Amino acid sequence: MTKESLFRESEFERLRVGLMNPRNPLNIGAVARAMSNFGFRHLRVVSPYELAFREARSAVGAAALLEQAEEFKSLEEAVADCSLVVGTTALSRRDPQHTVRDLRQGAWLIRKRLSMGCVALLFGSEKRGLSNEDLSHCHWLLRIPTREEHRSMNLGQAVAVCLYELARDQKSTFAPEKQALAAAGDLERLTSLLLDALQTSGYIKNSQGKAKSRSAAAPEEKVRRFIRRMNISAADAELLLGMLRQVLWKLRS
Amino acid sequence: MTKESLFRESEFERLRVGLMNPRNPLNIGAVARAMSNFGFRHLRVVSPYELAFREARSAVGAAALLEQAEEFKSLEEAVADCSLVVGTTALSRRDPQHTVRDLRQGAWLIRKRLSMGCVALLFGSEKRGLSNEDLSHCHWLLRIPTREEHRSMNLGQAVAVCLYELARDQKSTFAPEKQALAAAGDLERLTSLLLDALQTSGYIKNSQGKAKSRSAAAPEEKVRRFIRRMNISAADAELLLGMLRQVLWKLRS
Repeated sequence: MTKESLFRESEFERLRVGLMNPRNPLNIGAVARAMSNFGFRHLRVVSPYELAFREARSAVGAAALLEQAEEFKSLEEAVADCSLVVGTTALSRRDPQHTVRDLRQGAWLIRKRLSMGCVALLFGSEKRGLSNEDLSHCHWLLRIPTREEHRSMNLGQAVAVCLYELARDQKSTFAPEKQALAAAGDLERLTSLLLDALQTSGYIKNSQGKAKSRSAAAPEEKVRRFIRRMNISAADAELLLGMLRQVLWKLRS
Repeated sequence: MTKESLFRESEFERLRVGLMNPRNPLNIGAVARAMSNFGFRHLRVVSPYELAFREARSAVGAAALLEQAEEFKSLEEAVADCSLVVGTTALSRRDPQHTVRDLRQGAWLIRKRLSMGCVALLFGSEKRGLSNEDLSHCHWLLRIPTREEHRSMNLGQAVAVCLYELARDQKSTFAPEKQALAAAGDLERLTSLLLDALQTSGYIKNSQGKAKSRSAAAPEEKVRRFIRRMNISAADAELLLGMLRQVLWKLRS
């Protein structure tokens, strides 16, 4: 494990995902799953519908995380150890009491603050979102940039998108493998084999003799360009050479 | 509406979200909701569990989008008009056949390609993800950077995160490309002609009868992947189709 990922983990440890009065066990489960996917552990649930919370806890998947979820009677207690409390909102209307930040900018600020202390990220109930009383505990509000015409997201999806953005700017350890591209020599062998196959099959006319007339050079150039326009990897060039050899052998036999 | 958002919308019009064999109506509904949230309209469903699809359609929310969802019998038909087909995967194991890109880089590429033609973004079924046969239709794979220990995301949440990332960079500039890329329908025609030529020439063994055994499917998948690894333009696809037809005609005469 690198130093960087250790650092990241200790920062992620400082985020508390808070759910206010969640009603749907599937949503609670989905929130836990997204947290587990993106490496956040601390779920805090304020006044959940008891049955929903029990049901979610008994579900498979992210069970450990839900088992450790803390239940609170009030938001005030739930955020007591946090130096920053951020509420989420689907609304665009400016609340004169609050700054509303887009997810991108907001997540950047939250990450910055996580290096200094605990941060709570709050999500309201499925029906009503965060109440005015809830909002009064928040330092500022976060908005996912959804369409004007359909702002409100599903709870589990909203949490997933927020946590993805929070985890997004870490240096990805998953660099795509770079395929070695075919060298010019291979491409030239491909060119001449393909040209041969096209002449043998009658696709282009074979020029007799060794002297290349202008009209004989033209198809060769076309085939050469054609081969080079494709981004053939070294491995695929090998494969294609084998195919062409066999086709050519059969064309001639 | 600004000029920029008009432009963006026309690009978003070119994305097809494809669901392979979805089983859960709640997930289908959640996918539709996330699409509506982020401004994507075209949902394509391949061989869904019929009851699940009907149930999802009858659900409230994102109803209009689900009503317009298109149903297909095969992936091949579902992506026929797309010049780029991207599969999603939770796996980290390197598939030697495919480049796997992180969501961030992958979304950037998809946005670029949306300015040139239609793109399909595929999600596998909840249980098994995309099959090897499905994967053979994909140009490359997209991975959401989740934790090693818990990679697999809920379907609705995975779609929400991918679409969020696609919509995230509103200001991205789209360089107009000169070359239109070949659509999946052309690539599939190329695949079957090349396969035919390879079988006729004896490069691969011809399977007798119509029933595909496992060993007969494997070369077909390999050829399909091979064709898709190359970045063939629409014009070059036409050229190559003509070459293969002539070679095949000659091989048989």
